[in-house]
Amino acid sequence: MSPNNPNRPHPLSQLFEAEFQRARDIIVGIHRPDTSLFFRSIYAKEPDKASLVPFLEVEHAATLTEDTERPPRLAHVEYDIVRLTEHEHIRSVVNLETEQVVSSDSAENLSKPSFTQPEFMLFQDVCLHADMFKEAMAEFTLPDGFSITIDPWPYGGPDELDSPRYMQGLVFARDSSHNNPDANHYAYPIPIIPVLDWVTKKLVRVDRLATGGAEDGLQPHPRSEAPKVLLERNKSADYVPELLDRPLRQDLKPIHISQPEGASFSVHSDGLVEWQKWRFRLSFTPREGAVLHDICYDNRPILYRLSYSELTVPYGDPRPPYHRKQAFDFGDGGAGRAANSLELGYDCLGAIYYLDSFIAAADGSPTPAKSVVCLHEQDNGILWKHTNYRTSRGVVARLRELVVQFVVTLANYEYIFAFKLDLAGGITIETRATGIMSVVPIDEGKSSRYGNVVAPGILAQNHQHIFAVRIDPAVDSYRTGDTQVVVEETHGRKMEPRTNPHGNYYEVQRRVVERAQWIDSEPRLNRILRLENSTKKNEFSGRNVGYKVVAPATQLMLADEESILAKRALFAKHDFWVTGYRDGEFWAAGEFTNQSREEKGGVGDMVARGDWFSSLEPDDGGTQGEAAQRAGHVVWSVFGFTHNPRVEDWPVMPVEIHQMHLRPADFFSSNPALDVPSARNNMSVLVPCCDNGVAKQESNVGAAQGDPLSHLQGTGPDASLQEAGANVK
Amino acid sequence: MSPNNPNRPHPLSQLFEAEFQRARDIIVGIHRPDTSLFFRSIYAKEPDKASLVPFLEVEHAATLTEDTERPPRLAHVEYDIVRLTEHEHIRSVVNLETEQVVSSDSAENLSKPSFTQPEFMLFQDVCLHADMFKEAMAEFTLPDGFSITIDPWPYGGPDELDSPRYMQGLVFARDSSHNNPDANHYAYPIPIIPVLDWVTKKLVRVDRLATGGAEDGLQPHPRSEAPKVLLERNKSADYVPELLDRPLRQDLKPIHISQPEGASFSVHSDGLVEWQKWRFRLSFTPREGAVLHDICYDNRPILYRLSYSELTVPYGDPRPPYHRKQAFDFGDGGAGRAANSLELGYDCLGAIYYLDSFIAAADGSPTPAKSVVCLHEQDNGILWKHTNYRTSRGVVARLRELVVQFVVTLANYEYIFAFKLDLAGGITIETRATGIMSVVPIDEGKSSRYGNVVAPGILAQNHQHIFAVRIDPAVDSYRTGDTQVVVEETHGRKMEPRTNPHGNYYEVQRRVVERAQWIDSEPRLNRILRLENSTKKNEFSGRNVGYKVVAPATQLMLADEESILAKRALFAKHDFWVTGYRDGEFWAAGEFTNQSREEKGGVGDMVARGDWFSSLEPDDGGTQGEAAQRAGHVVWSVFGFTHNPRVEDWPVMPVEIHQMHLRPADFFSSNPALDVPSARNNMSVLVPCCDNGVAKQESNVGAAQGDPLSHLQGTGPDASLQEAGANVK
Repeated sequence: MSPNNPNRPHPLSQLFEAEFQRARDIIVGIHRPDTSLFFRSIYAKEPDKASLVPFLEVEHAATLTEDTERPPRLAHVEYDIVRLTEHEHIRSVVNLETEQVVSSDSAENLSKPSFTQPEFMLFQDVCLHADMFKEAMAEFTLPDGFSITIDPWPYGGPDELDSPRYMQGLVFARDSSHNNPDANHYAYPIPIIPVLDWVTKKLVRVDRLATGGAEDGLQPHPRSEAPKVLLERNKSADYVPELLDRPLRQDLKPIHISQPEGASFSVHSDGLVEWQKWRFRLSFTPREGAVLHDICYDNRPILYRLSYSELTVPYGDPRPPYHRKQAFDFGDGGAGRAANSLELGYDCLGAIYYLDSFIAAADGSPTPAKSVVCLHEQDNGILWKHTNYRTSRGVVARLRELVVQFVVTLANYEYIFAFKLDLAGGITIETRATGIMSVVPIDEGKSSRYGNVVAPGILAQNHQHIFAVRIDPAVDSYRTGDTQVVVEETHGRKMEPRTNPHGNYYEVQRRVVERAQWIDSEPRLNRILRLENSTKKNEFSGRNVGYKVVAPATQLMLADEESILAKRALFAKHDFWVTGYRDGEFWAAGEFTNQSREEKGGVGDMVARGDWFSSLEPDDGGTQGEAAQRAGHVVWSVFGFTHNPRVEDWPVMPVEIHQMHLRPADFFSSNPALDVPSARNNMSVLVPCCDNGVAKQESNVGAAQGDPLSHLQGTGPDASLQEAGANVK
Repeated sequence: MSPNNPNRPHPLSQLFEAEFQRARDIIVGIHRPDTSLFFRSIYAKEPDKASLVPFLEVEHAATLTEDTERPPRLAHVEYDIVRLTEHEHIRSVVNLETEQVVSSDSAENLSKPSFTQPEFMLFQDVCLHADMFKEAMAEFTLPDGFSITIDPWPYGGPDELDSPRYMQGLVFARDSSHNNPDANHYAYPIPIIPVLDWVTKKLVRVDRLATGGAEDGLQPHPRSEAPKVLLERNKSADYVPELLDRPLRQDLKPIHISQPEGASFSVHSDGLVEWQKWRFRLSFTPREGAVLHDICYDNRPILYRLSYSELTVPYGDPRPPYHRKQAFDFGDGGAGRAANSLELGYDCLGAIYYLDSFIAAADGSPTPAKSVVCLHEQDNGILWKHTNYRTSRGVVARLRELVVQFVVTLANYEYIFAFKLDLAGGITIETRATGIMSVVPIDEGKSSRYGNVVAPGILAQNHQHIFAVRIDPAVDSYRTGDTQVVVEETHGRKMEPRTNPHGNYYEVQRRVVERAQWIDSEPRLNRILRLENSTKKNEFSGRNVGYKVVAPATQLMLADEESILAKRALFAKHDFWVTGYRDGEFWAAGEFTNQSREEKGGVGDMVARGDWFSSLEPDDGGTQGEAAQRAGHVVWSVFGFTHNPRVEDWPVMPVEIHQMHLRPADFFSSNPALDVPSARNNMSVLVPCCDNGVAKQESNVGAAQGDPLSHLQGTGPDASLQEAGANVK
């Protein structure tokens, strides 16, 4: 039996369709036939690290056989038992080999499960049929030919201590006069927010919204003084080409990116990806989207797991109920569930592999999620170059990247998440924010300190996007005790006759992270984190082999630390968190973010439990130390966009881009990309200077050959070298 | 006569060959025939802003005629009058129309001119023939078949108050046994530094270098105790493919980037570049390399001039004379003079225009500098996307950039400088550092706190690269008094019942820069600079039209502020400087950096003169205020790489990349890229999953069509939309 036998998938593979179905059937089978079940998610439950590592070590030693012990194949199944007045939310683990339910628990009453697409889809219908909603809308007159469109939102952090499962919605009008379902309804916001009781499927209230300017206070206009006729001055804000308010530009000539010999990477059906000495396993979860496992270079492990963990979007408009505009796009809904099906020729260019996955339908059946991740190679400019100025010979290697990308749509907004591996052993984690801003109405002629008026009647509120990336290291070893995290800083030093007589000395300082903690960026000190193997030394430098984490400092959570917004997103307060590893602990803001009032089980709690990593017991009696030392570290990198909107962000915003980098630091014995050929791209062509009748300044350049100084200014290989053959350059 | 008539070049065009020659001839003509002249540089002297602006206004109004008054065509000529014991350094301005010398001055004795390539080339020969050098080398035995190679360096900041013109050199051995002139000599450093008196062309001394470890103090080993046989354990560090210590990788399949319909941009012989609503004028100077002038979008000016201004590289090794390892790569030598001649298919891909220029030979004749700048378009991923989750229809535009790139080689090291204009009105200024680190010898088996041992016997010292970019704004107007610079910060606010009851409010604060000053980055406050036109408002937001400067915070000068290294590079102490505009004031560290002991005429002095920008006179009697208010602002953006070397940076380092951005902020009335077609790239192909015999998880994906939920997960346009025609997507 081959190690790739479909009956024994790789332990890190996402669920195959038959496994998905089996997991669903096992759960259905343990309930009475008349029980009403609502499935939320089904995905592979990853093996415990302790049980997987021995398998990985055998796998990488290329000694895998059918007898190799491997962890059982498990599925995580989350579902509700639907009852009239409450739904019981169950999380089960199913063993797909024994077909047994291994564990099952009922989530606490106060923890609200994340929403699924069928739930979001239901919201608009409920509103449109509700008397309470019709009454609220009766206050307004809409222009002819407009219809109502409602964007469901999570309820945010409730003011009440003990609120039922709620959902709220932002209400818009859509110009349906030209019968185009893609007319942009965000151009026409309506100042009400309906609130739904998720269990009873009834509206509990409709909040009215303040629409005034800076001087109008926090409360909505009294009903008697509020504008009755809405949207009169609003302008369409369409982005689909057939409705655009301007012609498409015709003068952008195509750039073709092609790989005539095919891609340099390969993907196996169990998720194994191989490219240029890199190998990793790719999976996809409903909450995280793409996840990279067991990332190795030249068969040396670097990371055990790499994923986006959370994203919170708090809004800065103080007028109630806008303080409840705070989404957790991973915890409240799920980035994987919201992933776009990508299309050839739009989202990635070149030779592209698309990963398919499955999402649980309400009845638990595997719904295909087609092309939710794309993999392709791209050229990112020069990787390294040196020109010998004495001979004018230059050698250039290009920076090729393998990009693993997925795009999520969260109602109005889009994120583009990408993991990029490169030829020099680097990993870049790139986040792009685009889509349509969440806007609200503002009275004609007014302006606001809470945001920017990006079009007549449209206030784009100030807000933040704060992300957490989870980095689970395995630096040149799967033995988690070998890894250490080091904070490195670079400090200037005062002039001093004995050690620094001319004042130019500066000092690189290291501090091993001894216990779980947060760490803030400090660009003035060039503070970075190093992930090192404390037992393996670089053969030349003698220093620990390692990778460094390089991330630009960004503004983090602005909300008052006493606010519910800040309390439910403690992770968003610091740039880095280093915590003790625990199996299944993937969530920076905790497992349950939907309608939370505080972060539970997130990085704050992980740090608070006092894990320590050194072999020495801390003075203050950390209790979890031994386990953490054995289990290793997890590093969480947090970064934010403070988005104070520009008019240019309307109606669909150009991408804001953030990049962070993992770069080898004494992991290799030299530049690992030194063997990348300096190959000439033969498709490149010259663009001529385009006007005639003018003295060309280049006319005399040919004369350079005879000039004794000409070799000083150029990289051109001289004739004798060029004749030496194809591999000279 | 056309405005493009070659006899009347555009005032911002670089010198045509005939003009260059004329400038040289005019200077030669004013000296007696027996005067020995050594030319340093000849380039177009840009018109004063006050005289150019009226011309630009007429040009952009498309009302240019042959009668339009235009500033005189001038050349800047720098040369030495060579005398036996001293060289007089002259800077002249020549009127190319009247053929008169307009101005001429003799630089101060203490200001050393920047070096030219002929001077650098002379250094090795002088050393090899000098007895003093031979004596110093006699201390060592080199391996058989090795010869000496010397890299000339500027002398850095001298210890002596009044030193003559010096040049120093780093000495290496080159393995010449295989007769390959591109064998990498940096693998074999020799611990001496010869110092040349530039006027007498004689060595004044040879400094011996410390080669010990952390414990060995700052002084070189006494001659009696120093290792005599060098380089025994050193390893070759070759990067040219025929000498590489490993085979080139064969499995990187080509990526072809082609533009079958040609480029979307056009370049005119007078430097005008037009691309996608952008237009600017491109020139090239021996000190700055590529310079962009009069950058406009849709005929609205944004920047008057954009350029790199300076770069200093101080080393952190306190052992004398390493404190004098501090290059100013623009001021000491010149980035333009050091620019590579770029080659088709290596440095840029696609359809490429190469700009040629001229550099002054020693006799003043125009030496062609071929292909010193490349222009090309590139695809940089997704520019904007939105998917309507109700219809599954996604619209995607790609981020096309026009890249203006040049690459400079400074002995061992390379920089890749690029200005990138994009479809959304943004300008990215990207800097890549690559090449070979400047390394020194270290005794066998030792390590050092001053750097990293990247190969046996090779210490790569800790150092910094600190850059200054000069931004001369003209925001929607050439009237400099209209521009204002605003510091914008975003502040969290405490919870407070009346204005911030839930604690989520945050405040965007603005401060107009009233007088010349430095400004430091503060990521925690999201501090950015805005360049605004105070007289023009965005039609929707009512705010000043503007651009924002977004640059990540980086570590700046670490050397003690009392050190010569810090004093001669005051610019490197702060992230931003805002100064009052003066014609010809292009240099962040002053005009003369070579062998300087303090920054003169740099941003520090510009701030110290007390320019103020508001119409109100400051209390403390700023004296230059009126002029500055009329003349406008210059913004200098400073950023650094602290380079504590990795073993992976050897022998040629993978690029370190820094980007800063200028982004429109209420400059336009909506996303300016909304009219970019969402065109499918037809060259994209599918990569299949590559192993067989395994149950394909994608096998059932076709079933999605029948699934009522399938439209929730995808962006695929549904069939009816696809049939609607080519411009649907």
